[in-house]
Amino acid sequence: MYSFKDDYSELGHERVLTNLLKISNKQLDGYGMDIISAQAKELIKNIFCMPNADIHFLSGGTQTNLVFINSVLSSIEAVIAADSSHICVSECGAIEHNGHKILTALNKSGKLLPSDIEAICAEHINEHRVKPKLVFVSQSTELGTVYTKKELENLFETCKKHCFYFYIDGARIGTALVTDNDVKPEDFSALCDAFYIGGTKNGSPLGEALCIINQNLKNDFRYYLKQHGAMLAKGSLTGSCFKTLFEDNLYFDLARYANKMSQKLAKAFTNNGYKMFTNSPTNQIFPILPNKKIEELQKFYKFHVWEKIDDNNSVIRLVCSWATDENEVDRLIAVL
Amino acid sequence: MYSFKDDYSELGHERVLTNLLKISNKQLDGYGMDIISAQAKELIKNIFCMPNADIHFLSGGTQTNLVFINSVLSSIEAVIAADSSHICVSECGAIEHNGHKILTALNKSGKLLPSDIEAICAEHINEHRVKPKLVFVSQSTELGTVYTKKELENLFETCKKHCFYFYIDGARIGTALVTDNDVKPEDFSALCDAFYIGGTKNGSPLGEALCIINQNLKNDFRYYLKQHGAMLAKGSLTGSCFKTLFEDNLYFDLARYANKMSQKLAKAFTNNGYKMFTNSPTNQIFPILPNKKIEELQKFYKFHVWEKIDDNNSVIRLVCSWATDENEVDRLIAVL
Amino acid sequence: MYSFKDDYSELGHERVLTNLLKISNKQLDGYGMDIISAQAKELIKNIFCMPNADIHFLSGGTQTNLVFINSVLSSIEAVIAADSSHICVSECGAIEHNGHKILTALNKSGKLLPSDIEAICAEHINEHRVKPKLVFVSQSTELGTVYTKKELENLFETCKKHCFYFYIDGARIGTALVTDNDVKPEDFSALCDAFYIGGTKNGSPLGEALCIINQNLKNDFRYYLKQHGAMLAKGSLTGSCFKTLFEDNLYFDLARYANKMSQKLAKAFTNNGYKMFTNSPTNQIFPILPNKKIEELQKFYKFHVWEKIDDNNSVIRLVCSWATDENEVDRLIAVL
Amino acid sequence: MYSFKDDYSELGHERVLTNLLKISNKQLDGYGMDIISAQAKELIKNIFCMPNADIHFLSGGTQTNLVFINSVLSSIEAVIAADSSHICVSECGAIEHNGHKILTALNKSGKLLPSDIEAICAEHINEHRVKPKLVFVSQSTELGTVYTKKELENLFETCKKHCFYFYIDGARIGTALVTDNDVKPEDFSALCDAFYIGGTKNGSPLGEALCIINQNLKNDFRYYLKQHGAMLAKGSLTGSCFKTLFEDNLYFDLARYANKMSQKLAKAFTNNGYKMFTNSPTNQIFPILPNKKIEELQKFYKFHVWEKIDDNNSVIRLVCSWATDENEVDRLIAVL
Repeated sequence: MYSFKDDYSELGHERVLTNLLKISNKQLDGYGMDIISAQAKELIKNIFCMPNADIHFLSGGTQTNLVFINSVLSSIEAVIAADSSHICVSECGAIEHNGHKILTALNKSGKLLPSDIEAICAEHINEHRVKPKLVFVSQSTELGTVYTKKELENLFETCKKHCFYFYIDGARIGTALVTDNDVKPEDFSALCDAFYIGGTKNGSPLGEALCIINQNLKNDFRYYLKQHGAMLAKGSLTGSCFKTLFEDNLYFDLARYANKMSQKLAKAFTNNGYKMFTNSPTNQIFPILPNKKIEELQKFYKFHVWEKIDDNNSVIRLVCSWATDENEVDRLIAVL
Repeated sequence: MYSFKDDYSELGHERVLTNLLKISNKQLDGYGMDIISAQAKELIKNIFCMPNADIHFLSGGTQTNLVFINSVLSSIEAVIAADSSHICVSECGAIEHNGHKILTALNKSGKLLPSDIEAICAEHINEHRVKPKLVFVSQSTELGTVYTKKELENLFETCKKHCFYFYIDGARIGTALVTDNDVKPEDFSALCDAFYIGGTKNGSPLGEALCIINQNLKNDFRYYLKQHGAMLAKGSLTGSCFKTLFEDNLYFDLARYANKMSQKLAKAFTNNGYKMFTNSPTNQIFPILPNKKIEELQKFYKFHVWEKIDDNNSVIRLVCSWATDENEVDRLIAVL
Repeated sequence: MYSFKDDYSELGHERVLTNLLKISNKQLDGYGMDIISAQAKELIKNIFCMPNADIHFLSGGTQTNLVFINSVLSSIEAVIAADSSHICVSECGAIEHNGHKILTALNKSGKLLPSDIEAICAEHINEHRVKPKLVFVSQSTELGTVYTKKELENLFETCKKHCFYFYIDGARIGTALVTDNDVKPEDFSALCDAFYIGGTKNGSPLGEALCIINQNLKNDFRYYLKQHGAMLAKGSLTGSCFKTLFEDNLYFDLARYANKMSQKLAKAFTNNGYKMFTNSPTNQIFPILPNKKIEELQKFYKFHVWEKIDDNNSVIRLVCSWATDENEVDRLIAVL
Repeated sequence: MYSFKDDYSELGHERVLTNLLKISNKQLDGYGMDIISAQAKELIKNIFCMPNADIHFLSGGTQTNLVFINSVLSSIEAVIAADSSHICVSECGAIEHNGHKILTALNKSGKLLPSDIEAICAEHINEHRVKPKLVFVSQSTELGTVYTKKELENLFETCKKHCFYFYIDGARIGTALVTDNDVKPEDFSALCDAFYIGGTKNGSPLGEALCIINQNLKNDFRYYLKQHGAMLAKGSLTGSCFKTLFEDNLYFDLARYANKMSQKLAKAFTNNGYKMFTNSPTNQIFPILPNKKIEELQKFYKFHVWEKIDDNNSVIRLVCSWATDENEVDRLIAVL
């Protein structure tokens, strides 16, 4: 049965895997100090216009979030995040396992607002509660939505006002960058203290590229990588994947294709009179369907039922990727 | 400059990488629940004669050690290990970061003895000290040596007597299995509570196969995987690597080649009158050389200077692998 | 300025402190193994009818909660609690520092309901989220309310159904036991897996008596005490305090006096037409007052402004204790 | 049976306990912000000539060590200590539970030397091992010995060279200060980054006074106190104990008496031809006795058998305190 469950069902783009094969036998330095990783980092620094960033390649999103956040916070410091955040509901308490409370605000279509930060600050004023210190958002969000440049600027401004760090989870940053949203790759270095560029959900068999902008957060990061078991002995594995993704625009081409497929689906749902739970221009869409219709679609396709709207209707999540078969998209549209 | 520094300088065996390319576009279940991982697990269960083992694929050795040990121990429980163990000196305090003290004994050529366990037990008898609960050894050891079947049986016996768990780090288990040592793959399920089969150091771009034998340690392990960021979204990556390694004996062939190269070197050192620091039949050898000689070799080859013997002599470590170029071995021998 | 801020402003009841002086010079075993602590435990076991309970004396409530919860949960296991719980908002993230997420439900007058537990269970079904394992409530609650016997039975039933532990924070258990609520001391051993009897907030200079009922949770607890720095070298300090509190009913007499004072205040507020935020029969009351009135009272008394109701009205918290001066109560009533 | 096991068998000096009784009913601010704690801190700052120190009162030594060390170190940072240190062998892995490895050096009569620090530094140079960051010593040591001023200066110098923190556990600092050693109270503020003054082992029912000298380590410490359950609601308890101890020289008088008793014993052992395991001028002495003699003494006195010397002889530990009965000292001497 064809799956629209997620964007990590297929192992990786052919070009990415072919380039791995090409270095099969080559002697390279271990632990991420190899020349291929260095080349991949240069490519990313150029494209994102951040010559001074420190870049580290990790295996997956949960790992990247937990290692970075743990490297930044002392044990009395806490994270502020939307209640829908990946770190809150999809990482098995990894942040708490490392000792940090997550202070949550009710999400607005997946987003966190500056006013949420202010409200949490007002309640955390002495040692009977933890100290908020890092604000976490995702671009695009868990609900497919995208922060505008102004929204990110306002969040960063609020963070700076309180001496907080601002960190952007970019597991699906590619799909956000190829919408007509106004945030460009070159903006990130002025919009946050750190962010990561997701490979796993955009054509790589594994790998996220953590980009640390804030000079104060760079020191000792390799110690944290090692301590958390996140430093691959063969760093050229992730290095090569990212090198391929950022040569010849492959990363953006793949994201563009994923969005194109999901938006084709979205349009079809709308044309058929269905409402969307959020206004997502990216590769995850959330149509609201009658439960009967959902059951019907489940006979042909795999996807997540996201949440209940009322006794008769629910939200589903459909995800497209670089590997989505357009024929299957068309077939799904046909059965709507 | 050619390197004998380690066994993870080359990305992976061609067959392993080619098989990744073959599944590039195939839709597979995420998080290690895919069919290819299932097939890899079946192969391993058959070869190691452990139909009831739970197998999980992780990315690297440090990660495997920390996730497994953390899944097994409560916060007052401690590990017993040789002072030369990987967890003591090469994992950046990962075990302690997760809350567990490591109680060390002076290694004997890299080994831990039952009497070491007994001595530590005698000193840990009440709540002013931690409770030892898990015994950690490596096969082969950090010094290239190999435990005999009897030695492992005695260690396991001692563990059972004290209700301890016995865990074997098999980062280089392949090289141990293809010596003329008497421990066979089918022995492991009766020799320990858990062990892992190293992929990274034997031809795979990444991956270790943790095998949990003891029924009591199986529950909830996937939660620990997830919580530590050790669950790859695309589990077919490691699954496919292990499937290839355990089809057609590739795993053992690669280990045999690595040992053959290192033993060729070892013989040459011995023939030239050099002593060895340990009696290693595996792919890591530790010749003792005059410092002058070491400096000379360093002009042509990369390797680790392991430790000082006296003012004029030191131990070096030379490591061979599945990818070692025999011409370079011969050239090194020629300059001895 | 007289304070109604809390029930721990005065060091301790004269009889408690006098009895400390009496043992000033007596040689006693260390670390809680002394004869006086043993006598105190016997008294408590008799009064609460729990001959098989394990009792440990700790210094304070935060410490008791964190040590007990950490002794019970593995790192993937989580706590379920009302959002108003002491562990959520008044313990500086101690539970999370020890690695455990707290899953919260909106409180109902300070209480958690069985349906809250069920709702959280329904959302925590696989390894992408933590495993709930312990349910935490307080008797009396942070809002002064008291669970009935039936309510506690239903919560415990729900816990047992899911194989969860049920733990009751009794920082103010005394004030709950002397209301006309139907939960009696002898009920606790059948109502939960563990609870603690608060000394600090009822006449003792320090000390909470943790009572572990569930046999499976008793082992190794002294290790956790020691590891968290919670094992006093001179355990006779807390032992003697509890011995005095539970001789001649002092504990209950002090709680009864505290309630009497607060209910005298509550009645006066009601008689003056003020509403109460919660229906509290215990020593903490929460009148809703016009902000003007609050400012007026603040000229004469210290107390907490609890939360805003609307632009003109707020809830305040007034707390009475064993040491409250009835003259001050009467004077406060006079200025209402 | 009379005990020479330790210096915490008696609850507390009469004057200390009497002063607690005097404030039984007084309303005081909670959580250590009371006027009596403030007065106690002033006394200590004056006597130790450290007007800018931050002082916090904690309950016991293990708690003080773990809270302070955890407040100072990030999770990749480690402690350097002698293998005989209290944190290594008597605190149930508390430092490791909080995530920090302890790097040990073989003690020299209980002491750590600058060369030990250098040797550990030489081995910890990259991310495969933890980063040493704090050096821990005790004054007096676990073996009763005392660092000279020069020795402490050299240790501090070595720490500053490596940007390490230097922390002195002063559980028995009183007994060190009243020997003819050249370290005076006024020296500490220039000899370390932080130290603590032990109350529990010198006449107080509980309490240690942590003194933070280094400005950079002061911030947020109250958060750590709270998070570890180490902040007493009734801080006046420890505050009053320390106020009494540092009024009228009581603290030093008590320590002097303890030393006098132990040295009387030591002299008697020496006069009877017994050797001492360490040269201790303080209240713990370590005679080496034939096992026969030890058994004989055990019929009349409680004490620790410290360690085996050979098949026929062992070291015992005898501890005197402010409360030691001189008649018992004389009786013990009589049976030598």
